[in-house]
Amino acid sequence: MENLENSTDCKETASPLNNSGSLLNNTDSRPDGRAMGFVLVHAGAGYHSESKAKEYKHVCKRACQKAVDRLRAGGMALEAVTAALIELEDSPFTNAGTGSNLNLSGEIECDASIMDGKSLNYGAVGALSGIKNPVLVARRLLSETQKGKLSAGRIPPCFLVGKGAEQWAISHGIPACPTEKMTTKFSLSGYKRNKRKMELAEQVEMKRKRQSCEHENNSACLDTVGAVVVDREGNVAAAVSSGGLAMKHPGRVGQAAHYGCGCWAENARDISLYSTAVSTSGSPFLAGEDCVLGGVIVLRCCTCGEAQRSEDIQAVLVEFLWSHTTESMCVGYMSAQDSKARTHISRLPPGAVAGQSLAIEGGVCRLGTVSD
Amino acid sequence: MENLENSTDCKETASPLNNSGSLLNNTDSRPDGRAMGFVLVHAGAGYHSESKAKEYKHVCKRACQKAVDRLRAGGMALEAVTAALIELEDSPFTNAGTGSNLNLSGEIECDASIMDGKSLNYGAVGALSGIKNPVLVARRLLSETQKGKLSAGRIPPCFLVGKGAEQWAISHGIPACPTEKMTTKFSLSGYKRNKRKMELAEQVEMKRKRQSCEHENNSACLDTVGAVVVDREGNVAAAVSSGGLAMKHPGRVGQAAHYGCGCWAENARDISLYSTAVSTSGSPFLAGEDCVLGGVIVLRCCTCGEAQRSEDIQAVLVEFLWSHTTESMCVGYMSAQDSKARTHISRLPPGAVAGQSLAIEGGVCRLGTVSD
Repeated sequence: MENLENSTDCKETASPLNNSGSLLNNTDSRPDGRAMGFVLVHAGAGYHSESKAKEYKHVCKRACQKAVDRLRAGGMALEAVTAALIELEDSPFTNAGTGSNLNLSGEIECDASIMDGKSLNYGAVGALSGIKNPVLVARRLLSETQKGKLSAGRIPPCFLVGKGAEQWAISHGIPACPTEKMTTKFSLSGYKRNKRKMELAEQVEMKRKRQSCEHENNSACLDTVGAVVVDREGNVAAAVSSGGLAMKHPGRVGQAAHYGCGCWAENARDISLYSTAVSTSGSPFLAGEDCVLGGVIVLRCCTCGEAQRSEDIQAVLVEFLWSHTTESMCVGYMSAQDSKARTHISRLPPGAVAGQSLAIEGGVCRLGTVSD
Repeated sequence: MENLENSTDCKETASPLNNSGSLLNNTDSRPDGRAMGFVLVHAGAGYHSESKAKEYKHVCKRACQKAVDRLRAGGMALEAVTAALIELEDSPFTNAGTGSNLNLSGEIECDASIMDGKSLNYGAVGALSGIKNPVLVARRLLSETQKGKLSAGRIPPCFLVGKGAEQWAISHGIPACPTEKMTTKFSLSGYKRNKRKMELAEQVEMKRKRQSCEHENNSACLDTVGAVVVDREGNVAAAVSSGGLAMKHPGRVGQAAHYGCGCWAENARDISLYSTAVSTSGSPFLAGEDCVLGGVIVLRCCTCGEAQRSEDIQAVLVEFLWSHTTESMCVGYMSAQDSKARTHISRLPPGAVAGQSLAIEGGVCRLGTVSD
């Protein structure tokens, strides 16, 4: 896979297509007779300094590898996307799971959701404390939903929040994890710095001081993580996880836990249609904001012509893209036929204003075609 | 206003339009030179026995009256829709606020959301205990959002859950209310009955026993309440409130609190377009269910031709409808020019199967045209 930058101002018709109409990162993976899947992850849309870039790229690479390991072992999209998210949550550098932003009370409260494109089932947690991997709880809620009704015909929950979510997770065998273990030196120093800033702002009666699109805030605000996956059967899945806004009010639930906002996955209903998976970063509640910060990763795929005649050999064409209005976004992608993941810090072009301009890049990947 | 029943099987192209293309409940309100607004409410889609019907119609009537009182006093759509919801929540017969279903632990945890069609701002609470009127907290979250950033540039929350939501409400002057005061004889006896049923089902190892679309469950499940309003300026607002599923797991958040699921309101951006407000009952997570139970109230309105030339005299054409797949749905509607609200128990036609058939009815109302 080759990786070309193509940051585009949003006033232009931003598109991952180049002038000749083909996608930029055109890649034919080594044909090995088997379409094994593809994963695209991101570790946050925000601002990534050169010093942080290395860490972010590294965690994206590991997340891709974990997902691909599952795909190679015959795992489905849902398993692979969960594996990627766990790796992203476990990194102390991302604002998800360990290392999440602390809320106003100095606690960690996480949001996460996951969607299965095959069944359209969905699982989500909001304002969840005391669990190391929020995505695991979302995943478990989803799989419990798929088992059908509870005793006496009760509908199983697919979205749980707060203490109830924590209790449900523990009662389903997911171990508790004390907040202290999920708090990092970095998140704690960020909390103390923000607390001082708040006190100062309130002292000088700047209660309505506008948040400028400054680097420090961006990086703390939006580095939600996410992944989208297609497996060898062409099933798609998407997931998202976030520690939420720094200094948020306890109980605040962000877009990562919102049905239809944080992620979406939907298999094609017909062989001629596309399967689609999307994972977002940023807020859906941005109407009226003049500085809209967000990022998104998308994949869509369709089964190619020759595969329609054979059940054994599936050829899947995957188109993928990432886009952000933040200064930068760290992404990684890998097909099950690749030896290692590609990672990339996507940046707005020089002079572009975060929140007003848009970067969009992407590629295309053909999985498991057989040369005859 | 006249009120005609037109329950239609969902296999037909269900539509509130009759053969001549005009809406069924065509009503020209008394012209008094001023378009003062219109409200449509519902007190639950589920099953309403004849004995319960009277109570439900009564609370719908009162809710309409409260909304219209606000509209007549010059209030905007957002105020009017809040007033309607408070009345619906305060009724011990609805599954919202007082009288809400109890969860697995015997607690009340409410969901509510509200949306302003003018600003597209949104406020919601999930799994909220200890507050008499959940919609008031959603409303307050929305209005705090409209005030702009908090100290040090923090983004105000628009969706709070659990203990954090309760604390936020109290710190913003909304009084606490003990669960006991919100629990009714009816909700408590329902809890005890459900608890026995669960124990029985578990004893006889019927853990996966399918929930049939039986009356008792329906009525407990889906009687979320909601309202949609248009004011004299043509602004729309929508709100929804629910006690959620009976015997739900603590922390479960239902569709009433979900952005884009429980309610939606959006003013027309152009004078030639429609403003729309919607409030739903039922779950968005129903893919794969063979018995989809839900209800919806909708209004859309546009400013009529003559009003486009005058700022003083606005003529607003309001089309409204309700639809449900449950056995019945209780609705009420009223324009500010009416002397009292119309209420109605909409029922599926005889022989139709709940969850598989659809009833749809509606009307049209012209507000405040001046005859010259």
